[in-house]
Amino acid sequence: MQLMEDKILAEGKVLPGGILKVGSFLNQQIDTVFLSQIGEEMARLYRDAQVTKILTIESSGIAIAVAAGMKLGVPVVFAKKHKSSNVDGSTYTAVVHSYTHNTDYTIVVSSDYLQAGDRVLLVDDFLANGKALQGLTHLVHCAGATLVGAAIAVEKGFQGGGDALRAQGVRVESLAVIDSMSDSSITFR
Amino acid sequence: MQLMEDKILAEGKVLPGGILKVGSFLNQQIDTVFLSQIGEEMARLYRDAQVTKILTIESSGIAIAVAAGMKLGVPVVFAKKHKSSNVDGSTYTAVVHSYTHNTDYTIVVSSDYLQAGDRVLLVDDFLANGKALQGLTHLVHCAGATLVGAAIAVEKGFQGGGDALRAQGVRVESLAVIDSMSDSSITFR
Repeated sequence: MQLMEDKILAEGKVLPGGILKVGSFLNQQIDTVFLSQIGEEMARLYRDAQVTKILTIESSGIAIAVAAGMKLGVPVVFAKKHKSSNVDGSTYTAVVHSYTHNTDYTIVVSSDYLQAGDRVLLVDDFLANGKALQGLTHLVHCAGATLVGAAIAVEKGFQGGGDALRAQGVRVESLAVIDSMSDSSITFR
Repeated sequence: MQLMEDKILAEGKVLPGGILKVGSFLNQQIDTVFLSQIGEEMARLYRDAQVTKILTIESSGIAIAVAAGMKLGVPVVFAKKHKSSNVDGSTYTAVVHSYTHNTDYTIVVSSDYLQAGDRVLLVDDFLANGKALQGLTHLVHCAGATLVGAAIAVEKGFQGGGDALRAQGVRVESLAVIDSMSDSSITFR
């Protein structure tokens, strides 16, 4: 998506440690006109995939998932992050390792909101090493639902998570894939 | 908003401790068709208020804030919750007491995303004792911005937070105000 690449080049900031800051338009502050275009593009990519539900993780995935869900006309479910694995009620859980914070966290979704008949599209803002997305994939499998694919705003291609998922046969559509980045330049795939 | 009241009566569940569970349509799982109607109604209420920015708190406020922001055509900023008050960079912060979890947390927003010229609409899913909304109000004042008012999906009128804010002169518009609720019935104002 040309618009995503343009926006990253215009407003993104590369910080030390391989961090791309897009807080001015994608998380923290959300450009709702741009967000609507992101939702439209994700809906276009998966229009014929009979998606019945979108699954994301709190917090920064929610806005994008909602934009895509509105355009596809399907509900959005978000998994919650917990520090502990003790969660009440009937739930599906997965443990995710965060490289950024060097810690594990548990993602949880109520079994009420993910069912065997569902065709699930995963949506998130970033895809780097793919651990979060693999956690969400696990939740889909726990529910006996069908994984349709993933729609990602920005993939850090150089961290390999997206290609690992593609090698497993998962359809991964990223609106921008960054192959390399430094203080002075960002190269898209 | 009749539709909000109908939805609460049809799908909401009253749990012990004065908790209203709306996870099936408003948080956790989000009915995106309904969400779009919520956004439309909030935009209608504040159409003439020259809103330049919407401010909410992660996580459950984000979807509603985004829906309203899309309809008003303004950016959405969400404050992050932190356990500690140590936050890097130039930020505005407020301490909020959570009655639900009987703990204090700090809400934080970067000073990049809230400015003196902004006319800010606060959006959240629930308004109960009003502590979260008062925290957001504090952030707006820290930035020297103008508080236009608040748009809330569900107000628990019997907990008094909304009326306290109204008594302070804050415009508070709630799509449904619950005056009392029990296992067997919910009474709207």
